[in-house]
Amino acid sequence: MADEAFQIHLQQLKQKSPGFLETIYALGNGHIGVRASNPLQGNSPAYSGKPGLFVNGFYDLSPIHYGEPYYGYAHNNQTICELPDPRYLIFEVDGVRSDKTPYNVETIDKTWDMASGLLDETFQITTPTGKTFTLTLDSFVSQAERHLYVVRYDIRALNFSGGIKIFKRHDYVNQQIPRATADIRRAQRSNTLMQTYLPATAPIMELSTQKSQLGLLVALRFLGDDPRVTLTTQNDVPCYQINLDLTPERSAQFTFGYAIGDVHDLLAFKLHQQSNVEATVALLKEQTFEEAFAASAARTQQFWQDSDIVIEGDSSLQKGIRFNLYHLFQAAGRDHLTAIPAKGLTGTGYEGHYFWDTEMYMLPFFIYTQPEIAKALLGYRYTTLPAAGRRAREMAISAGVLFPWRTINGEEASAYYPAGTAQIHINADIAYATDLYLRATGDTDFLKSAGFELILNTARFWLAYGNYATYGPQRGHFVLNRVTGPDEYTAMVDNNYYTNRMAKNNLALAVKYADKMAKIAPEKLTDLAVTQDERAAFAEAADKMYLPYDAKHKIKLQDDNAPNRPQFDIAHEPATNFPLLLHYHPLVLYRYQLNKQADTLMSALLFPLDQDEAQLKRDYDYYEKITTHDSSLSRAVFSILANRIHQPQKAADYFMDSSLTDLTDLQGNSEDGIHAANMGGSWLSLVYGFAGMHYGKSGLTFAPHLPTSWQRLKFKIKYRGRQIAVDLQQAAITFTLLHGKPLTVYCQQEPCELTLKNPSKQVSLTDSTN
Amino acid sequence: MADEAFQIHLQQLKQKSPGFLETIYALGNGHIGVRASNPLQGNSPAYSGKPGLFVNGFYDLSPIHYGEPYYGYAHNNQTICELPDPRYLIFEVDGVRSDKTPYNVETIDKTWDMASGLLDETFQITTPTGKTFTLTLDSFVSQAERHLYVVRYDIRALNFSGGIKIFKRHDYVNQQIPRATADIRRAQRSNTLMQTYLPATAPIMELSTQKSQLGLLVALRFLGDDPRVTLTTQNDVPCYQINLDLTPERSAQFTFGYAIGDVHDLLAFKLHQQSNVEATVALLKEQTFEEAFAASAARTQQFWQDSDIVIEGDSSLQKGIRFNLYHLFQAAGRDHLTAIPAKGLTGTGYEGHYFWDTEMYMLPFFIYTQPEIAKALLGYRYTTLPAAGRRAREMAISAGVLFPWRTINGEEASAYYPAGTAQIHINADIAYATDLYLRATGDTDFLKSAGFELILNTARFWLAYGNYATYGPQRGHFVLNRVTGPDEYTAMVDNNYYTNRMAKNNLALAVKYADKMAKIAPEKLTDLAVTQDERAAFAEAADKMYLPYDAKHKIKLQDDNAPNRPQFDIAHEPATNFPLLLHYHPLVLYRYQLNKQADTLMSALLFPLDQDEAQLKRDYDYYEKITTHDSSLSRAVFSILANRIHQPQKAADYFMDSSLTDLTDLQGNSEDGIHAANMGGSWLSLVYGFAGMHYGKSGLTFAPHLPTSWQRLKFKIKYRGRQIAVDLQQAAITFTLLHGKPLTVYCQQEPCELTLKNPSKQVSLTDSTN
Repeated sequence: MADEAFQIHLQQLKQKSPGFLETIYALGNGHIGVRASNPLQGNSPAYSGKPGLFVNGFYDLSPIHYGEPYYGYAHNNQTICELPDPRYLIFEVDGVRSDKTPYNVETIDKTWDMASGLLDETFQITTPTGKTFTLTLDSFVSQAERHLYVVRYDIRALNFSGGIKIFKRHDYVNQQIPRATADIRRAQRSNTLMQTYLPATAPIMELSTQKSQLGLLVALRFLGDDPRVTLTTQNDVPCYQINLDLTPERSAQFTFGYAIGDVHDLLAFKLHQQSNVEATVALLKEQTFEEAFAASAARTQQFWQDSDIVIEGDSSLQKGIRFNLYHLFQAAGRDHLTAIPAKGLTGTGYEGHYFWDTEMYMLPFFIYTQPEIAKALLGYRYTTLPAAGRRAREMAISAGVLFPWRTINGEEASAYYPAGTAQIHINADIAYATDLYLRATGDTDFLKSAGFELILNTARFWLAYGNYATYGPQRGHFVLNRVTGPDEYTAMVDNNYYTNRMAKNNLALAVKYADKMAKIAPEKLTDLAVTQDERAAFAEAADKMYLPYDAKHKIKLQDDNAPNRPQFDIAHEPATNFPLLLHYHPLVLYRYQLNKQADTLMSALLFPLDQDEAQLKRDYDYYEKITTHDSSLSRAVFSILANRIHQPQKAADYFMDSSLTDLTDLQGNSEDGIHAANMGGSWLSLVYGFAGMHYGKSGLTFAPHLPTSWQRLKFKIKYRGRQIAVDLQQAAITFTLLHGKPLTVYCQQEPCELTLKNPSKQVSLTDSTN
Repeated sequence: MADEAFQIHLQQLKQKSPGFLETIYALGNGHIGVRASNPLQGNSPAYSGKPGLFVNGFYDLSPIHYGEPYYGYAHNNQTICELPDPRYLIFEVDGVRSDKTPYNVETIDKTWDMASGLLDETFQITTPTGKTFTLTLDSFVSQAERHLYVVRYDIRALNFSGGIKIFKRHDYVNQQIPRATADIRRAQRSNTLMQTYLPATAPIMELSTQKSQLGLLVALRFLGDDPRVTLTTQNDVPCYQINLDLTPERSAQFTFGYAIGDVHDLLAFKLHQQSNVEATVALLKEQTFEEAFAASAARTQQFWQDSDIVIEGDSSLQKGIRFNLYHLFQAAGRDHLTAIPAKGLTGTGYEGHYFWDTEMYMLPFFIYTQPEIAKALLGYRYTTLPAAGRRAREMAISAGVLFPWRTINGEEASAYYPAGTAQIHINADIAYATDLYLRATGDTDFLKSAGFELILNTARFWLAYGNYATYGPQRGHFVLNRVTGPDEYTAMVDNNYYTNRMAKNNLALAVKYADKMAKIAPEKLTDLAVTQDERAAFAEAADKMYLPYDAKHKIKLQDDNAPNRPQFDIAHEPATNFPLLLHYHPLVLYRYQLNKQADTLMSALLFPLDQDEAQLKRDYDYYEKITTHDSSLSRAVFSILANRIHQPQKAADYFMDSSLTDLTDLQGNSEDGIHAANMGGSWLSLVYGFAGMHYGKSGLTFAPHLPTSWQRLKFKIKYRGRQIAVDLQQAAITFTLLHGKPLTVYCQQEPCELTLKNPSKQVSLTDSTN
């Protein structure tokens, strides 16, 4: 399906800097990610891009330096490794090598067909001796074979005939110059790697980090059989050499495949067991580019089958949303050992760390459209449960676990605890997401094997962390002091509304699932030493959790003392001062009512039954005034909630301001990598916001509000073994059960019974709801 | 006066590690400090001491590394420089040099006569070839000539006769190996210095830091005229060579003087002006050891004349208190450009920084006994007022100044703002001390030249920082949010009692002194743009300052939410876990009611009229239970206040537990330097505590409580041009006006009118007060 609405064309992009293009056209499959570098210039100091290959979960360590180190501080930076660029080529024409003397490279075209996953790029290259040729790359990261990246080069002379030599080698050059930066959102350090070629006929190499003691296996193989391509060595480094005779009449082609493993593959290899990398290499012996690509494209097609969203009425938005969805798909780890780095596998921003936004912004998309990936992402948290237990002990918490604020390997890597470890809400976020997964999938096996332990151990943390207050309005309530909510412009407060509400939920979930486990797997309760007393303690703390509220103004308070901080005068702040965190000391920001992003409002999004519309409206108006949206996570929440308070224009504006953050380089830093959570937020905006999907009192409920300029919003969701298509138009919404048992969904208080016999129900939308 | 009660003998010390002895016997005069090193072994890696010369205000910079750097963070570490040890000698006997092959050195005796300031030490040295001799050092840092350090060596062979060679040179060896330490109270880094010999007949050298661009001048001169001593060079380094013929019958002596300058001296030298160092060198040409020492001893005698405290009934305490007082004298900068490093000039602990404790723990001693030094210390703050203004702007405070939490050069050097910059109470501490100085001295010139600006600009900070609250019990009050009080186990709270009370005072002082300035120097008010509106705003904020109070339990609250934090179970904490800061993450400590040191109680000490005894008793009992005294600043406050609530035994216990912190190595870290503030605290305990001196409703008031085991406590204070001797015995207290105008002091509500005609008044002490 060569559908224009799935294609990202270079000509349609406003920003065209090398780094930006590398990010936008980055390919990935949750295991590997490849930035779309200039294939000749990556190693040149003059080149402003940051080429690289990333392997999810492959990181290096470096000690964190503190001006004043304190007990329990995170010890090591974990930094995702920038691996050698697999697209890189060295040309030699007229005895001049492109790695010694720069060739002129002009980017002619880039087209990414997201329907199939193929990236097609054309460069025009001129040698220092004036010879000009085109270089075309067709490449894909396989969605079918996790280790596989394939690139096909096609070269055609434009103004000459004659021989050229091409070398393809990847002896590691530490391209990464540490970039001194005051922007904490960027990677603060670089990694250095050691590379060892392992005995094999084709170049197969081990890339090892210096500090994390991790290594992985990368194999490079020429696809096909061509006497012009020979495997040789240069300075003892295995190297493919391609000797081509070019003419303007006929292009020359050659194709390479990479099998990019992980630490387990390397271990298998060293144990003389068959590693998956070798299996992939073996596959490459048999498959052509077309065959390998067809397998990948089939999986991609299946992705779109389940996960596509159709928007009629705005073609660039339609394309942008698909861009977001496909990047999410490309970013998500699927092996239960990795999650979604904040920048996907497209850059080193935030050091490649996993944060709470995996659960709170991205997981819903996967839960409802690719539940197997959602399970794998929660599986990553389960894998790191022991590390989270150790962290809780280190933080003097006697029971349960404390998940790290930012991490790759499961250990805390946040070097600034007031906006790191203090964000203990991550525990409740993971529990919330686990519950959402369980509710949406009914996956009892996962509950038994992992889900219950996640919910139980996060709940245990709250009991150990919090206490019952004895003074003031909090008296008799369960309180959580000295915490930081999602809003990082407010830190170290008492009873952050979001945190408390989420912890209350976490505790209640522990009770709910303990009850369920008592029925389906009572032996697990014994194994996990869950007593009746503990269950009662969970219930009581949940019941008595303090939620700060200004009874006079009827506003949910961000924390106990929030109203007594003056409101920051956002309106009169010079535009150049945003994001404020780069222009004000934390102590300044913390002294004001000032939100980087939705915080208290986020809890309204997650618990729609907590408040009526009037309450939500008051809170919305209150917090909107003090929110800068300096976090890319913010606008999606404001968009969704604007729908709930029937402000469709505002909902549309917030959505449009944020939905194309990367494609339009809204924040000016997409070159550091995509904003993965923001992309998840755009799905939430569409499904939770415009379609208004939520868990109502009766069950899965929709409260649709299609923006007036759109004709249509279509998407599918999976729900407990079923798949439902939702087709929202201005006048009506139609629900169609595609497969699975009968289900009743609700729309405008109206139940819609869907069965395979009568699969579709249409609900007409009156003006009053829009 | 070779008075035993002024002498510190090696034999009386329980701890005898090299580093400890270096600190205890360190000499200083506020400008220079010399640790009492082993004179042969300082450069040996095996030596556990940390020899060194310190010059107050001479520091190096190194960039502070942050895991996550934020705007406005302190940029540079400022680290007091460890300069070459001026006591160091190299011996050569039988061709074996002591710097190449270690000689055995045994410390035989050390006696420090604090009455004169002379340090007398004897070492027994054995060469690798078995020759044994004694080395005796008589040394002093001059209290009369700030640049001057003199050391006289005396050598006597014990088991041989023959020639030895001695070299005295100080080419800088970077002795300081960075000591990896998790103890943030220690210096975290070392400095490196460049040394340049300047053209002069005697070795005169420039020591320059690498980063701070500071340099100073040090001159070494042989005192006397002795053909055995020659000035030569070794490897182009000027070096004194002393050739001695030793016999057991007769000792050989030689003396060196050092003139140790500062940056100004170096500048003068480079500008070919007469520097003070050269003046000191010139002086050394004329003076013998005895003459130079006599001048110094005269000033020391004068110090004791004014500042001595006599305790009868506990001779080791008597000696220990003198030890404290003399170390304070040795530590205090007197040039208006330097203050008192936390470790005096005796070590690198806390990087040689000045903190709030200069004003709050040490200044009273100087104000009442050496007011010129007190003035110089406040002068240092005045000198750094411009830097404090820049810091306020950096912290987005529109008016006034914010003094740095820790600094040498006036710029913030705290790498951990929650227990650094957030301790904004430092502003009010400086204002409080300025007022105390002005009240005690009546120094109107200082008010006009510096004091008013200090008080005004600190007050302006509060107006800009704080705001009027609109919610809850704080409504209508002036509040200060997101601050850290003196107790560093509680951070980033709202309305810290101590901070608010001190700020209230600061604002009130601005009003009081603006009124006074209106009378005596109205033009200054115009120059400083002090308007009636601003004065009214000061008055209103002072009046409406919020002071958190639990009306039910009638307890002053440490901060708004303090009662809802659980109390840390100090009683059941293993003794090895103290200080807690080395064993718990800050977030853990902050979550509890847990005090490192007196915080709310400190305000009771400073504002005795704020509360009646019943209130104080309640607060005392409350806070005592949750205080670990992990800070050496704590026990003095508890001792003083115990007197006020008539718990004499507790007062004595707290005093005895802390008064000899260094001499008994109570905290096990005296090797890093003395605890200067603790020494100031011991004076406060005696004068404010046992003598109960304070400003009562009517004026200077005493409420004495002599510990039952003492016979007598005697001290003198200066007060507005007068000097008063106080003689406290069990049955009576006697006040004697030594000079100055008539004065009425108060004791047990009884006015004591003192005049030069009737200089003494005795008040008998009834049992009820004790």
